[in-house]
Amino acid sequence: MSDIKPIYLQKVKQQNMANILQTIWEHEAISRVELVELTGLTSGTITNLTQELIQWGLIRESETSQGSVGRRRVMLKYHTDRHIIIGLDISRTTFEIVMTDLMGRVMKSIEGNITGISAPEQVLDLIEPHIQSMIAYANLKGLPVLGLGVSIPGPMDKVNGHLLSPPNFPGWEGYPIKDVLVKRFGLKVFIEDDARASALAERWFGLGRKSQDLVFVTMGMGIGSGVVSKGELVVGSNGLFGQVGHMTLVPKGSVCACGNEGCWETLGSIPGILRRWSGGDTIDAFFHAVHQGDKLANECLQETLYYLESALITLFNIYDPDVIILGGKLYPYLSMYLPEVKAHVKSRVYAFAQERLRIEPSSFGTSQNAIGAVALVFGNLLKGPLQVLTQ
Amino acid sequence: MSDIKPIYLQKVKQQNMANILQTIWEHEAISRVELVELTGLTSGTITNLTQELIQWGLIRESETSQGSVGRRRVMLKYHTDRHIIIGLDISRTTFEIVMTDLMGRVMKSIEGNITGISAPEQVLDLIEPHIQSMIAYANLKGLPVLGLGVSIPGPMDKVNGHLLSPPNFPGWEGYPIKDVLVKRFGLKVFIEDDARASALAERWFGLGRKSQDLVFVTMGMGIGSGVVSKGELVVGSNGLFGQVGHMTLVPKGSVCACGNEGCWETLGSIPGILRRWSGGDTIDAFFHAVHQGDKLANECLQETLYYLESALITLFNIYDPDVIILGGKLYPYLSMYLPEVKAHVKSRVYAFAQERLRIEPSSFGTSQNAIGAVALVFGNLLKGPLQVLTQ
Repeated sequence: MSDIKPIYLQKVKQQNMANILQTIWEHEAISRVELVELTGLTSGTITNLTQELIQWGLIRESETSQGSVGRRRVMLKYHTDRHIIIGLDISRTTFEIVMTDLMGRVMKSIEGNITGISAPEQVLDLIEPHIQSMIAYANLKGLPVLGLGVSIPGPMDKVNGHLLSPPNFPGWEGYPIKDVLVKRFGLKVFIEDDARASALAERWFGLGRKSQDLVFVTMGMGIGSGVVSKGELVVGSNGLFGQVGHMTLVPKGSVCACGNEGCWETLGSIPGILRRWSGGDTIDAFFHAVHQGDKLANECLQETLYYLESALITLFNIYDPDVIILGGKLYPYLSMYLPEVKAHVKSRVYAFAQERLRIEPSSFGTSQNAIGAVALVFGNLLKGPLQVLTQ
Repeated sequence: MSDIKPIYLQKVKQQNMANILQTIWEHEAISRVELVELTGLTSGTITNLTQELIQWGLIRESETSQGSVGRRRVMLKYHTDRHIIIGLDISRTTFEIVMTDLMGRVMKSIEGNITGISAPEQVLDLIEPHIQSMIAYANLKGLPVLGLGVSIPGPMDKVNGHLLSPPNFPGWEGYPIKDVLVKRFGLKVFIEDDARASALAERWFGLGRKSQDLVFVTMGMGIGSGVVSKGELVVGSNGLFGQVGHMTLVPKGSVCACGNEGCWETLGSIPGILRRWSGGDTIDAFFHAVHQGDKLANECLQETLYYLESALITLFNIYDPDVIILGGKLYPYLSMYLPEVKAHVKSRVYAFAQERLRIEPSSFGTSQNAIGAVALVFGNLLKGPLQVLTQ
């Protein structure tokens, strides 16, 4: 092994560290002996690398007594409060910034309205002081900020770090948001579209601890998704994997902004529901009418639920996830119908799939995107710890 | 590095070999110097491992002269004719066995009819002598048989190597096909469902050389798919990823065998077309009527093409592939309409996606599944060469 290059050794070291961090994450607390077994690394490597991770402040030792004789074992756990992660969610009308510990637990959060502000620079001017004050807090406490995660409306160009052609989001097309944020804050910046960020929130801090294959569906002004398969976000050839709002659901249906006709988004998004109802301008008005017993509104609701069920069955059949998680601005209005939706979906899938079928609400409510932005940083840390930790 | 375990070294060696084999595959012919650059391995490692791969007979040296001065360079290529791979396709009514070289080039192929034979043992009794004679040929020529790849109707239980509940395939449910074949032939056996095997045929020997993200759609008695993302077959949580025939395409449509209603398969498969046409019993009769100008048949065809287009748009939006490849027993009847289908699909996707949209016919015609079975072995060789090469 004497002819191994330093760059290759560094790569192997990072892979081994990633392996250790991932294994600790899966087990929450684990001994070095178990790490040797589970990672396939030698005890010498485990000793060296865990020591280094302890020095980085990422993990810590914790003693537990075990069995009746009280034998003490040293376990390794994440050291959750030695680093800060900042998550930023920019939507079409609002922003949210969260400052969290390593595990996405929120220490501070700030929300704001950006309705009517279409210049990205102006939006960032509003956001900047909040992030600067979080960075200042971290500096004061001596806590390194691991990175700034960002959730924005998709689709986006991952290679160049800018937005492609987000519908209803004028001014942002082609804006080099990643470069600008790096320059403004001097932090490592990671960007993902909102649906995928939401999926990552579940993957690392929510239901994903037990599900390596999940689909997060976000329903609001549009309908999108993030798909995690074997623990990895699936991105597709052009970074556009999971545009589930644009599945064809009705033949010769209404024309969608994407160019297709009969897309689920034209039927089941907030604008889609209001268009089919044609009884008012807001989703609040629609559900008010539903709850007042209005006949047309209730028919429209039943149709909406039927489309949702049909789309969910399609998602089960094409993505084969452990669980489908529902979120977005529309979801709170629909949550009371979830048991009914589940029962109908169950009655329309393969018999052998009925038992395993799971449909769950999102774990982080209105902060899903911002927590997802944090999860994006965390996921990058676990995949390439040295890249995130070093400047 | 003195504390590395032998088992870990073996794992690293296999990874490095896989890295080398994959890189040679991508470049077809490559020098050792280029291998050092592209793999990140040292020249010492490259020298040792390529030497070993040459001894295995997997790769060979080839001299080329370059430029006007005729400087000679030693290039590494696959040694295609030093190993045999056997591919077996079992469908509901037929079987096909191909014997190929390392790159899936067919040296011998045998087809047979198994209509009406529902006992798996009887089917295998019919197949066995053909495979035995291929093995005998390989032994005679001194060519190792790398493995037996098998393509069967899905869905299947990958963990236990048996079929789950294949529709219209009585007698096979739960049959431990993998164990039986290992016992009968003493070869390494790899099994995949037919749609995925077809996708692998493209991934390794067809359009996949230039597309790391592809979807193979097979249309026949049913409709299924195999999805390759970043070069890897996506399998899903239960090995059921890509059941595209069961996307909902028509609200409140006909009930499907899967339990859903309005599935694409109920509309666009051979039985789906015949049911909607209700003018005859065979697909030949249907297309005969179409070509005779029969009005109802032509209406039904137009509807069929519309469903196909709608489904293809859904596939583009949810899987974001480089290319969708169409195959299966129905495809030859539809191939003359492909330009029209492409044009319609193009008019119904995002403007920025129109240029990159590709829909292509399958590369291996009626032998797609059998070649896919071969590709399955080849893919396993590239991923874990030592596991496939050693007993």
